[in-house]
Amino acid sequence: MTPEEFRAAGHQLIDWIADTRSTVESKPVLAQVQPGEVRSNFEVNAPTELVGIEDLLTELENNIMPGVTNVQHPMHFGWFPSNASLSSVLGDIASSGIGSLGISWESSPALTEVEEVVCDWMRQLVGLSDAWHGALNDTASSSCMVAMLVARERATNLVQNRAGTQSVETPMRVYTTAQAHSSVAKAALLAGFGWDNIVSIETDPRTYAMLPEALANAMQADADNNMTPAAVVASVGTTGTTAFDPVGEIVEIAARHNAFVHVDAAQAGTAMLLPEYRHLWNGVEGADCVAWNPHKWMGTILDTSLFYMRDVDLLNRIMSTNPSYLMSAADGQVTQYRDWGIPLGRRFRALKLLFHLRLDGIESVKDRVRRDIANAKWFEAVVASEPDWEVCAPVDLQTVCVRHHPPQLNGSPASTEQLNAHTLEWVRKINRSGDAYMSPSILDDQWMVRVSVGVELTERHHVERLWGLMQSAVQPS
Amino acid sequence: MTPEEFRAAGHQLIDWIADTRSTVESKPVLAQVQPGEVRSNFEVNAPTELVGIEDLLTELENNIMPGVTNVQHPMHFGWFPSNASLSSVLGDIASSGIGSLGISWESSPALTEVEEVVCDWMRQLVGLSDAWHGALNDTASSSCMVAMLVARERATNLVQNRAGTQSVETPMRVYTTAQAHSSVAKAALLAGFGWDNIVSIETDPRTYAMLPEALANAMQADADNNMTPAAVVASVGTTGTTAFDPVGEIVEIAARHNAFVHVDAAQAGTAMLLPEYRHLWNGVEGADCVAWNPHKWMGTILDTSLFYMRDVDLLNRIMSTNPSYLMSAADGQVTQYRDWGIPLGRRFRALKLLFHLRLDGIESVKDRVRRDIANAKWFEAVVASEPDWEVCAPVDLQTVCVRHHPPQLNGSPASTEQLNAHTLEWVRKINRSGDAYMSPSILDDQWMVRVSVGVELTERHHVERLWGLMQSAVQPS
Repeated sequence: MTPEEFRAAGHQLIDWIADTRSTVESKPVLAQVQPGEVRSNFEVNAPTELVGIEDLLTELENNIMPGVTNVQHPMHFGWFPSNASLSSVLGDIASSGIGSLGISWESSPALTEVEEVVCDWMRQLVGLSDAWHGALNDTASSSCMVAMLVARERATNLVQNRAGTQSVETPMRVYTTAQAHSSVAKAALLAGFGWDNIVSIETDPRTYAMLPEALANAMQADADNNMTPAAVVASVGTTGTTAFDPVGEIVEIAARHNAFVHVDAAQAGTAMLLPEYRHLWNGVEGADCVAWNPHKWMGTILDTSLFYMRDVDLLNRIMSTNPSYLMSAADGQVTQYRDWGIPLGRRFRALKLLFHLRLDGIESVKDRVRRDIANAKWFEAVVASEPDWEVCAPVDLQTVCVRHHPPQLNGSPASTEQLNAHTLEWVRKINRSGDAYMSPSILDDQWMVRVSVGVELTERHHVERLWGLMQSAVQPS
Repeated sequence: MTPEEFRAAGHQLIDWIADTRSTVESKPVLAQVQPGEVRSNFEVNAPTELVGIEDLLTELENNIMPGVTNVQHPMHFGWFPSNASLSSVLGDIASSGIGSLGISWESSPALTEVEEVVCDWMRQLVGLSDAWHGALNDTASSSCMVAMLVARERATNLVQNRAGTQSVETPMRVYTTAQAHSSVAKAALLAGFGWDNIVSIETDPRTYAMLPEALANAMQADADNNMTPAAVVASVGTTGTTAFDPVGEIVEIAARHNAFVHVDAAQAGTAMLLPEYRHLWNGVEGADCVAWNPHKWMGTILDTSLFYMRDVDLLNRIMSTNPSYLMSAADGQVTQYRDWGIPLGRRFRALKLLFHLRLDGIESVKDRVRRDIANAKWFEAVVASEPDWEVCAPVDLQTVCVRHHPPQLNGSPASTEQLNAHTLEWVRKINRSGDAYMSPSILDDQWMVRVSVGVELTERHHVERLWGLMQSAVQPS
């Protein structure tokens, strides 16, 4: 395709995107397709016929879009927000158009240095000190994987460079809570710690935050038993209920054992843009690394996940390779982001943040974040005011966890099984309808429903409409 | 930003991209900036002022583009080609515009199923059997990391789910060659095997391919010494010289020890689109996984790295997490790509391949690949015909490794040090000029220069011009 053909097709595509985004509210939230349905729209055999852009856009519209769950829809309250602000989409388009290659500083100095610049801007905007150095990863899962690898190597004085983890005699332990994101256990397992060495620390029964005394006891007991307390993963805003582990106390306890501390603030990092919420990660300066995702609530399109590290030398010693074909005269004077994680090559992700910050600005993001928190607080209040409804966890930010308790039959309360069935029934009824989407989730061994407010287009009236849908859905049919 | 503001800005951006791509040949190949120069174009403090798209495009042009090494430039012969075909750029733009979220099938059925479709098309196009199942990763480094983790877990019967790698008593060994990409050792180290257990198998002194007898001997010796031969990484097209390890013999030898075999065909996978080159990975069907990068020579813009696995159940058992908030009624009937690798979330990468295949078509790619191989062969022949020049390795595809031997002074041949200095001098002279770019690289402990043909815009006359630049550059100044 020539640049002129691209120009013509690109204009059509931009119009298609603008049309699609401006009509998102008229579409179902949850894709109304069955497993295999999208696949069946395509030939089994690799295509041999070419099409023009008009036909391809028609295919996209007819064969693909019905299978897209519309996370940009204002009635999407599932998982966490996955906003794709159109200013950041433009940055992503610029990145694609430039077609840069990030495998070394020399392969694209701008890619490296603009990434340094925007990571530093974001650091300032959430109030982290200049002891932190940032990079853009694809996801917080990958950052957690890096954190676990660094923790393992720090605990063993870089055993990877010798006989490997098998040669380590003292068992290495990782501490987190049952409320931590699934990527934490996954990363610890993949890093080779083993399931037996992932210690689940008790949480406060009301707040679901890690109990620091329980952590202190567990770490001390392990140390007394000749085990190495290697790492603690503190969740700043858990996925389940947006609980906040007490980072300050955790880093203090971890320091007694020289254990590595990773702070997973994937969702709640956005709230740290607001000074009035920064107490929620008090003590973060004492941690070793922090991950948070502008591609969630903040709205810089996926994949834009910030990873901050204090001891970059340690990180680089674990991650670095320096093959001769990538050596250059600039070595030693520049950042080599390939030595910050697993992939060698990277896209020019920094443009997404640059465009977002320059075209929309951080003030508009902060206004939106405050709006979302206010909407969640409003929703919490109306739910809590209804006797049949329960708010299951503190609402510190924008996620409200709820259960509906059906009226008692014959005077006896619903059993756990009945309540679970009821919860899944009403939430799936709404989800399947396409009118709104929420995430059923398990808390205290029982299903509840997470209502996660924060899509860019979600205004108060959308939350009000959701509440109406919920009240209807729980009525006996 | 509203969809209408996006529409207006998007049209300007598309024009900027078309202009940029159509004038790439007038720019230097290597970015003509010093370390820190791009960074110094930006304020240290996070921006508070907003700009419009015109001003931002001006900033992009003035402050960023001079720092971009133009890998789309027809005189770029460095690393491997990193083509970004404009048809695939359109697919990437569509993906950004849709703003889909890939964390489960339900979060975007189309994202999952179109990925299945295009991975299967690509499988057919390189002649792999339907025993293989594919996914799109960011890079071949990540695929290699996954391969090493799976190999480790298979060798230990999933020890991650018990006491972790520390509890394994028998040392686990990984076999590869010194010619393998740096990501192989990195992945083995990060997977915890340890440097001592990465066994470098001797290569043929002429072809730089792994010697199967040496592999057989090493694996047997280890097994006899109560070590576990866990994995072999076979390179199909090494980074240094595009050497081809004998996959067929390797899988046979590995099978004797039930060792896992990963095939790294990052660059050479593209050649497998041509049936006449498939003998170069004969035996691949016996391997356990294969990685190759359409984002290199084939030209589907970064990040588009194919990962094929035969035993997907094993992969999923190692990688899967099933948190309650991601459970849905479709579980068990659908592919959950989160269980194929480390990141939970993924972008709608499949659209890049879909657009590339539908708008440009695979036949045009194949024509281009044949053109590049012919250009490399021509270049090999002219270099070999000059007495002072040496072609250092077989040219099986499109990378030509060369050295220039300066005329003897006082009748004595240049020392290794002198030859190294001479090589780095002439190649850096050309690279710094911006007229062309090649990768100096070390082979047999001595510097040589890799000339990697294959940029989309590179025609015969560009290779001829490169040859002229090289002949001038080696003249004493």
